[in-house]
Amino acid sequence: MADKAQLQEAIKTQGEVVRKLKSEKASKEQIDEEVAKLLQLKAQLGGDEGKHVFVLKTAKETLTGKYGEDSKLIYDLKDQGGELLSLRYDLTVPFARYLAMNKITNIKRYHIAKVYRRDNPAMTRGRYREFYQCDFDIAGQYDAMIPDAECLKIVYEILNELDLGDFHIKVNDRRILDGMFAVCGVPGEKFRTICSTVDKLDKMAWEDVKKEMVNEKGLSEDVADRIGEYVSMQGGQDLAERLLQDPKLSQNKQACAGLTDMKLLFSYLELFQVTDKVVFDLSLARGLDYYTGVIYEAILSQTIPAPAEQNGADEAGVSVGSVAGGGRYDGLVGMFDPKGRKVPCVGVSIGIERIFSIMEQKAETSSEKVRTTETQVLVASAQKNLLEERLKLTSELWNAGIKVEVLYKKNPKLLSQLQHCEETGIPLVAILGEQELKDGVVKLRNVASREEVDVPRADLVDEIKKRTL
Amino acid sequence: MADKAQLQEAIKTQGEVVRKLKSEKASKEQIDEEVAKLLQLKAQLGGDEGKHVFVLKTAKETLTGKYGEDSKLIYDLKDQGGELLSLRYDLTVPFARYLAMNKITNIKRYHIAKVYRRDNPAMTRGRYREFYQCDFDIAGQYDAMIPDAECLKIVYEILNELDLGDFHIKVNDRRILDGMFAVCGVPGEKFRTICSTVDKLDKMAWEDVKKEMVNEKGLSEDVADRIGEYVSMQGGQDLAERLLQDPKLSQNKQACAGLTDMKLLFSYLELFQVTDKVVFDLSLARGLDYYTGVIYEAILSQTIPAPAEQNGADEAGVSVGSVAGGGRYDGLVGMFDPKGRKVPCVGVSIGIERIFSIMEQKAETSSEKVRTTETQVLVASAQKNLLEERLKLTSELWNAGIKVEVLYKKNPKLLSQLQHCEETGIPLVAILGEQELKDGVVKLRNVASREEVDVPRADLVDEIKKRTL
Repeated sequence: MADKAQLQEAIKTQGEVVRKLKSEKASKEQIDEEVAKLLQLKAQLGGDEGKHVFVLKTAKETLTGKYGEDSKLIYDLKDQGGELLSLRYDLTVPFARYLAMNKITNIKRYHIAKVYRRDNPAMTRGRYREFYQCDFDIAGQYDAMIPDAECLKIVYEILNELDLGDFHIKVNDRRILDGMFAVCGVPGEKFRTICSTVDKLDKMAWEDVKKEMVNEKGLSEDVADRIGEYVSMQGGQDLAERLLQDPKLSQNKQACAGLTDMKLLFSYLELFQVTDKVVFDLSLARGLDYYTGVIYEAILSQTIPAPAEQNGADEAGVSVGSVAGGGRYDGLVGMFDPKGRKVPCVGVSIGIERIFSIMEQKAETSSEKVRTTETQVLVASAQKNLLEERLKLTSELWNAGIKVEVLYKKNPKLLSQLQHCEETGIPLVAILGEQELKDGVVKLRNVASREEVDVPRADLVDEIKKRTL
Repeated sequence: MADKAQLQEAIKTQGEVVRKLKSEKASKEQIDEEVAKLLQLKAQLGGDEGKHVFVLKTAKETLTGKYGEDSKLIYDLKDQGGELLSLRYDLTVPFARYLAMNKITNIKRYHIAKVYRRDNPAMTRGRYREFYQCDFDIAGQYDAMIPDAECLKIVYEILNELDLGDFHIKVNDRRILDGMFAVCGVPGEKFRTICSTVDKLDKMAWEDVKKEMVNEKGLSEDVADRIGEYVSMQGGQDLAERLLQDPKLSQNKQACAGLTDMKLLFSYLELFQVTDKVVFDLSLARGLDYYTGVIYEAILSQTIPAPAEQNGADEAGVSVGSVAGGGRYDGLVGMFDPKGRKVPCVGVSIGIERIFSIMEQKAETSSEKVRTTETQVLVASAQKNLLEERLKLTSELWNAGIKVEVLYKKNPKLLSQLQHCEETGIPLVAILGEQELKDGVVKLRNVASREEVDVPRADLVDEIKKRTL
């Protein structure tokens, strides 16, 4: 390990280099390269005992240059210590950084955590500035399309299990999009911005999307119309095969690679028995810059009030009913590695906030009462001065692993104890009285049926377990 | 609901009042009062559809004036929209705000989430600027000491279950501390600062604590010595009884209330069978300002490397081996209520980061291998060109609820598939080959014993379930 003071000096100098490049508005590539060097220096400094080498600072540089136009939604922290800091914008970029910094070359993991966006909140539609994301990713150098197919299988399983009504999963590939733009005559430097425009097709009519392409993005009508033909196409493995024969697309190397992989993906999806819900859709674009291959988005078919405001940045809330999305991002980990070593990744983000709000809506309209507690038994009494006996029994049952509550009152009324059970959905009441104590029994009451039975105290735990299986 | 424009105007004016008071360094009480009015106005504006009334902004005002000297550790956010924002410092203050804003008068809940502190991180000792807290709180107007006893029972249960070695839980009461300071002759305005000094007794000798009281805090030697006598006392219910007879303490109303409750608390702890680990300790002070009654702290007896740096702000990491702490805070919710309506609360914060790092240390020194996956079966093959059959079987098992992995390679070697199981602790391998496919069986291999048996494909799910119960 290098001498600490030397390292700190080097970090300071390198930091100045990065700041200078930024102030001069140098190219993204140039800045990225110098930032990578800076991170490497910091990584060397990291551990204070040599055993665990940590990177102490996750500076704003981590998020810079990953989100394109969405960067304006990043929450910056007040500069209290001379560093640029930001709040996590999503879970994907931090995951990529984690892999690079810890030199992890393969991993499969899920992560449920909060992210932060400086967006306009819309409370009643479940859109907040602080909200949960739920991500699943597979990182590693593997044979084509196998992990990608698993991600789609997982989305399918989740949406099936949650019983949110019919859904479909749109699939496309960035390479097919880029190939399509190329053969349609879009200039290379406009690929990303035209991609953003195509992404709006799920909430705008083609006519308006075309207008944006021509009037705002400067495409000719011809070029836009050619794009319009492709993006209207939907199908399955058959469409991939047909497009591989397309006189124009078949001449484009990128498009062919994407279409060949699309065919392979569908053959795996067939084995996973999920093709009934998956659609190869050439209009699917997804906003984020970091995707390099397959992209996908799951959409619920049931109609849900459409959000008034629009926000291309939301992982899984861009369009009405969109509840999951993701894709392959093979270049992101390499952006954090000083030597640019790549770790291919594919992942999916489940829109749990969205899904929860749909499930809540469903629960509200359903007649079934949602139980708000896991408590199995309330220890109660009809008589006064039995608090100590109630606490003693409560403790006995707790020690036996039963979920028990007791009202925190010296002498609560039996009625209010029973009401508490009905309100919260506690199914059983263990009632103590002078007579029960004398007889060595507990009166066990079923809240729903009101049936009561005396249970010997020694058998109480077993009896409760039997009834609450 | 008031007219929206009027409300917005009123909020603007009230915001100016608050800012003016702050710039004039007005008294805390005065600022708190005006902030409460501001929050009330914002609450009225909150909902945009009248159905759910939300408070849109959780401004920095929420955290101001709750943490005393620790406030310097609050992470401020960059002012991007003209508001003061901070990152959550702990879970207690946000919980209190939540109760007040939603007019909740009783609730029992746990919460595991991240908090943020602008402190010096110490990676190797599990001390970070972003870390998890795990809180349990009971809010509501109840009979004395019943919820308090439950909190202690829970701490006892957790530390017992986790098997972290011997421990004890110190208990004291802010009212006993204040009464003690009063009868020892500490001036009222010095109670809090002397309390902070007493709090250092777990890591400083009495001589040094006394020096700080006399030299830095300006107490006379006499007064300090009188405090010294009390804070050396430890005991149980008996000590509370003895102190109730103490000629000086028994004259102080606050102290008597605290001691009477301490007696009651111990009687409940006896019923909960936890008195073997609970000690009434007059030196326990705890740093935070918001406690109003019982306070407690759980300490592991095993020796753990002492942290070099000291930090009075950490909920459960103040002293060597301190892994949980909490107490009663009856005034905090009222600070957020425009009418000052109080909701009594008692809670505990479990130092999960600390506990995890102790458990990790334990796992490292133990010979038992920690299993890093929940996967029950790896679907494998010894022969080439069976990827499709592997994927098909994987999907079958997934659909039956079995936790299955498959290597993402077209033709992996059997050895590398078996090695993967040994490295990650997957107990079973389901092996497919031409012969097995022809016979309609799967070879099920026990990774540990290497024993293999052919299982009819139709029985495979049951056989796996039987073996991985």
